[in-house]
Parts: sequence; structure tokens; C-alpha cells
Amino acid sequence: MSENLSARGDLRVAPSLLRYELLHVDAQTGARRGRLHTPHGTIETPVFMPVGTAGSVKAVAKDDLLTLKASIILGNTYHLMLRPGAPLIAKMGGLHQFIGWDRPMLTDSGGFQVYSLAQIRKITEEGAAFQSHLDGSKHLLTPESAIEIQETLGADIIMAFDECPPSGAERSYMEPSLARTTRWLKRCHAAWSQQRSSLFGIVQGGLHEDLRRRHVEEVCAVDLPGYALGGFSVGETPEAMHAGVAFCAPLLPKDKPRYVMGVGTPRDLVTCVASGVDMFDCVLPTRTARNGLLFTSAGRLTIKNARFVDDQRPVDEKCSCYTCRTFTRAYLRHLFVSQELVALRLNSLHNLHYFLTLMAQAREAIERDVYGDFLKEVLARPNAAP
Amino acid sequence: MSENLSARGDLRVAPSLLRYELLHVDAQTGARRGRLHTPHGTIETPVFMPVGTAGSVKAVAKDDLLTLKASIILGNTYHLMLRPGAPLIAKMGGLHQFIGWDRPMLTDSGGFQVYSLAQIRKITEEGAAFQSHLDGSKHLLTPESAIEIQETLGADIIMAFDECPPSGAERSYMEPSLARTTRWLKRCHAAWSQQRSSLFGIVQGGLHEDLRRRHVEEVCAVDLPGYALGGFSVGETPEAMHAGVAFCAPLLPKDKPRYVMGVGTPRDLVTCVASGVDMFDCVLPTRTARNGLLFTSAGRLTIKNARFVDDQRPVDEKCSCYTCRTFTRAYLRHLFVSQELVALRLNSLHNLHYFLTLMAQAREAIERDVYGDFLKEVLARPNAAP
Repeated sequence: MSENLSARGDLRVAPSLLRYELLHVDAQTGARRGRLHTPHGTIETPVFMPVGTAGSVKAVAKDDLLTLKASIILGNTYHLMLRPGAPLIAKMGGLHQFIGWDRPMLTDSGGFQVYSLAQIRKITEEGAAFQSHLDGSKHLLTPESAIEIQETLGADIIMAFDECPPSGAERSYMEPSLARTTRWLKRCHAAWSQQRSSLFGIVQGGLHEDLRRRHVEEVCAVDLPGYALGGFSVGETPEAMHAGVAFCAPLLPKDKPRYVMGVGTPRDLVTCVASGVDMFDCVLPTRTARNGLLFTSAGRLTIKNARFVDDQRPVDEKCSCYTCRTFTRAYLRHLFVSQELVALRLNSLHNLHYFLTLMAQAREAIERDVYGDFLKEVLARPNAAP
Repeated sequence: MSENLSARGDLRVAPSLLRYELLHVDAQTGARRGRLHTPHGTIETPVFMPVGTAGSVKAVAKDDLLTLKASIILGNTYHLMLRPGAPLIAKMGGLHQFIGWDRPMLTDSGGFQVYSLAQIRKITEEGAAFQSHLDGSKHLLTPESAIEIQETLGADIIMAFDECPPSGAERSYMEPSLARTTRWLKRCHAAWSQQRSSLFGIVQGGLHEDLRRRHVEEVCAVDLPGYALGGFSVGETPEAMHAGVAFCAPLLPKDKPRYVMGVGTPRDLVTCVASGVDMFDCVLPTRTARNGLLFTSAGRLTIKNARFVDDQRPVDEKCSCYTCRTFTRAYLRHLFVSQELVALRLNSLHNLHYFLTLMAQAREAIERDVYGDFLKEVLARPNAAP
């Protein structure tokens, strides 16, 4: 950390803004224990990155994220470009300063939300034209503008503009899409200033192994600080996703960080870590928390369930989060059923703590060369909490 | 504090559960600096009590309330008896234990919400019959049941069951209502076990000075640990309310705490303190916060206002709350406009801090015999922040 802090000034203008250290590979699996040095601090990997869609990890504030020891959070370019807009964020000193977060950040390219949220969208060689889901205003995202906006936001890690084809897309749709994503990647690389933000490429290809292999080669032919696997957890079964990631991840360069986008459940995380993945993001812990679904070491728990009405136990007896140290299931059920706002924060705190702690435990298991045992233990956890 | 802590065991069973110390009367006004000793700790007065309607001060958790140095919070008997119900709270060890709050608490009698929230209500000599606003279920609150429920909840201070007549009620309505409230008070007193919770009587009478004077005499003829003024801030002008409180408060016993219920704005608080009031509660700081209205030393501020879009200043440059120390108006505006949940917490934190700090400043001004100057300074604060 001290090395990183002292080097911060240099890193901000150095050709290599990001540095990945592979510390250890687990003897039982391919799980990697690493360290990612960024201009805003060091990230211990494997890491789970909470999603701060519109510049806020929903229902939790910075103080909570610091308590949770979140080392990096995400911002969504699609949401931020529409509201409050990149020019305003630039005027406010960049995304870090605007939202008051001085640890590492990552922004996605906006492409995924264009495909999943925008009212009307049209993909051409130039880019993706779409109408805002907020007010119907018309926008165009191109590889160049996606990079320009992300560099304006100023996150430590920015993502290439790609197309994420629907789950189960036919080979006949997939092949030209992948070729275009590769052309877009080269345009992203050409547009990238390399001044402050480190650009990651994204591999697509759905569940077609040959297409994935070919696209890994195309994407990794562009020399970038890191690579991501996109197009997973978009509707396929967990087993298919795990197999796809297990196939692709080892094809990525060993000396660069590997990021599987939009994944996933605790089981997804520990399984993909075994395949050598270093970075994850997902709205799952916060979104489910707002719906009253809590993850515990003894399984999942739906807090509004009537059986918790007089349950004096904490949500998870093994958990050390603020929610579990302070409140009973009975009270949390009452808060949720009564639609008290604080329920959403307390639930989100707990779920984020569960995900972040799971990754801390994974890191420790890798260091001790017992990751295979840890994986088995996590996969054996029951589905539903007693 | 140490005196109180060591005596806690005795206080819980002593005949006098509550002890009020009048420390000082301001030389410029009638403002009182006091100390209220309860089974769960000591309260410095004058005090503002955040309202935790259904067992939660909306949008803030216990950790926030501790940071804010809230010394006492309220619970609403009406809400709690309907959901989750007094028997469940009793089973969970009482309200303090159920909600995880070990500082002083006060519950109201439920009467005010019956009149303001319940779908159908009928007042008879026996009590108030009503249907729940949640599910239409039928309930009856009587002086005896209101005390029984409150003693079951186990707050340090409980309130007599009264009728709060509408603002501007005719003398012909008011007189029999007051007589009934007096009869109800005697029934409350007879029902009160004096074991754990200290019962306060409530003076009504609207804006009729002769009725207020007569009701003060009737209510204070019942020997109780404290007395409250009800029926203020129910629709009359601030000036009429201030005059009414200024008339009534000095009529109350000097050696008992004086509580004006449901009041009010910062100006209401400092004005009523000058009349010798010790305790206040109001949903104003939290409710307005959720609507984006923030109180500052430079006036009120509507955070969604377009002029704050690029305002890098904190909400209040003189404020030391977490929100003001951490975030800009521009970011808070973005969070509110984007309907981010955390906006509701950050706004609530700030407003509660403003109200609680105002009372801390009032206490200091009384101690220094300059409360009149402080009052003038607060009343001279502008309406709208620049």
C-alpha cells in the first residue's frame, strides 16, 4: 500500500497505469491470489466489486463501504452519461471527486445497459443509437465516445465498448457481432489516451467454445492492461456459465487481471475463482437485499417469512456485520414488512458483507493452498437457512 | 451519568422512576437548563426527541442516532400496537430490546394517531374505537389499555390517553372533551403500575387561555413525573402556537419536565424553549429530509433545485454532520433527483443533526445566561439558503 501511495503521482501519467501482481496460484485449483495496483490504491484479488450504478451503491453510503472494506466499486456509464451527464461530472472534478470516493473505481462502457435498458436501440458499424429510458432523449454511443466519456469520468479501469449478444444467440448472429466487437475494440484502443484510466478488453462468444477461443485471440492481440469475459450470466444455466468460464479464463494472459462481468451468486463466484478469475461485479447482493433476500453461511433467508416473526437470532450467527451484530431477525422482519427505509440499508450491508467476506476467505484459502477444500465447503452450504 | 448508571437498578423499581433536575434558568428569558434521569440514562434538556414511529427513526439506524448523540427517541403506540403488536414486542423483551436501543425512549398513547390516521373512529366515555389504517381491523383504545400497552412496550416515559381536539374547535366541543380527558387521566393514573415507565399527563384546551388554565390545574392535580402540552401545532399559526405555549408552560410545575408535543420548526423550538419548555418531538426533520428540504444555519434549502446542480459547497458550511463533511450539494442533488435511497439517509442525518445541534446550542446559551441573544440570532436566520 505504501509503495502504491508513494508512486501515485507517477502512476497517473505512467504508460502502465495498472499493475497486476500474481502472488500465488492455489495448488488444488487454478485459483489466483493477486494484487492490482491502481492510481487510487491497491486491490487484493480475487475481488468482488459492489455496483454503484448512478454513482451510489444503492442504499449504502461511503461510510458503510469503508466499514465493509470494499476496495473498488463500479459506476455505470449508461446511467451516469444520462444523469447527471459526463460534462457535469467533469466540472465537479471527475467521478471520484463527485461521489466522494477516493478508492479505485471501474466504469463499464454503457453497451450492456443500452441493450438491456434503452427503449429503442439500433446497432450499426458506427455504434449503438438509443433513446434514454429516463426521458426518451436520443443518444449515440460509439467506441470513441464510450472511451471519451469514461476517460472524462476518470475511473481507474474503463471497459471497451462491445456488443453483448443475447443468451443463446445463433452462430449466424454471433460471428458478425464478434467481428464487429473486435473492430470496435481496435477503435477503443486508438481512442484511449492512456493518461489516467486503464482499458480492459471484453471477450464475447456466448457458449460457443470455438468462437470464445477465437475471440480471446482477437481481443488479446490488442495489448491492454486487463481482459474481461462478457456475455455470461445472461440467461444460461449456472452449469453452462461455469463451464464457459472454466474454458475461457485459462486462455487469458496469466500476467493480466481477469474479470468476469455481471457475475454472480456466491456459488458462481467461488466456482469461477477456481477457474482463475480475479474480478467480479454484480448487483445481486444489493438488489436481493432490497427484496428481503439475505445470504448466510447457512443458506438463503427471505426475511419477510412469517417464521422469523419472533426469531431472536441474528440473520447469520457466523456473521460479524453491523446488521448481525446489532439486530434480530424478528426486528429486521418487522422493518422490512413495515417498509421502513432502514431495512434496505441493513439488508444491503449484510449481503455486501457476505460477498466481500466470501472473497476474503477465498483469498486466504488460495494463500494456504486449500482453495479446493474451501470451494467444496461453500458449494455444500444449504440452499435455505434454518 | 455515572450517578445515573450506578443507580439504574434502584431506579427501575423506585417509586420515582424519573427525576428532573432544574440546573439553571436563563437570566434573559424563562429558558430552563435541566437534566432528566431515566432508567436508561440521562437526558440533557431542553431536548429534541427524534420520532421512531414504528420502532425506527425513518431512514436512519441506531449507529447514526448514536453518532448524532440522540439521547432519547419516540415510538408511536398506535403504529406499534398494530404492527408488530405489543404481545410480540413483550415476547422480544420489550421495545428497547426489540429495536436494539438502550437509551431512553418515550411512547405516546396512540390517541393522536387514532384521530389523525385511523379510517373510522368513535370516541365514547370508554375510549376510542377505530379501524386500523393498515388492514381495517377493529381496535379499542381506552385509558387502561393505552397504559397497559405502553407499560408492555416498556418505554421510560409513557403518555396519558387524551383527546386532541381539532384546531379551532368550538368552546362547546372543547369543554366536554377536556372534562373527559381529565377523567381519562385519572383512569390512566389508576391503571399505571409505576413499575418501569413514568407517566406524563397532557394538557389540552386549544387556543382558549381560560380553558388551558383550568385544564392545567385539573391535570397537575394528578401527581405525575411530568406534564405535556398537547393540541399545539395542529393547524394554528406559529404566532398563535407560540403565544399559547408562552401562556401555558409557566403554569406547569417548575420541578417537573415540560414537554410540548409534536413541535416543531427550529423557530418553534427556540421560541418555546424561551417559555420554559424542556422537551420536544416532531417528524419535521426526517419527513422534510425525505422530501429534499434541508435546514441550514443560512436558511432552508430544497436540494433538487436546479441551482445546486454544480454547487460544490456542503449543504451547510457551518455544519459538522457526516453529510456536510463528506458530500457536495451537487452530489446530494444528483442522489435525490435520481431517487437513490442513500439520499434519504444523508438528508435525514443532516436535518436531525441540525435540530439536535440547535438544542445543544440552546443548552449552552442558557448556561451562559445569553439565551435571549441566541433566540434573536436564530430567529434572524434567513428563510432560504443562498
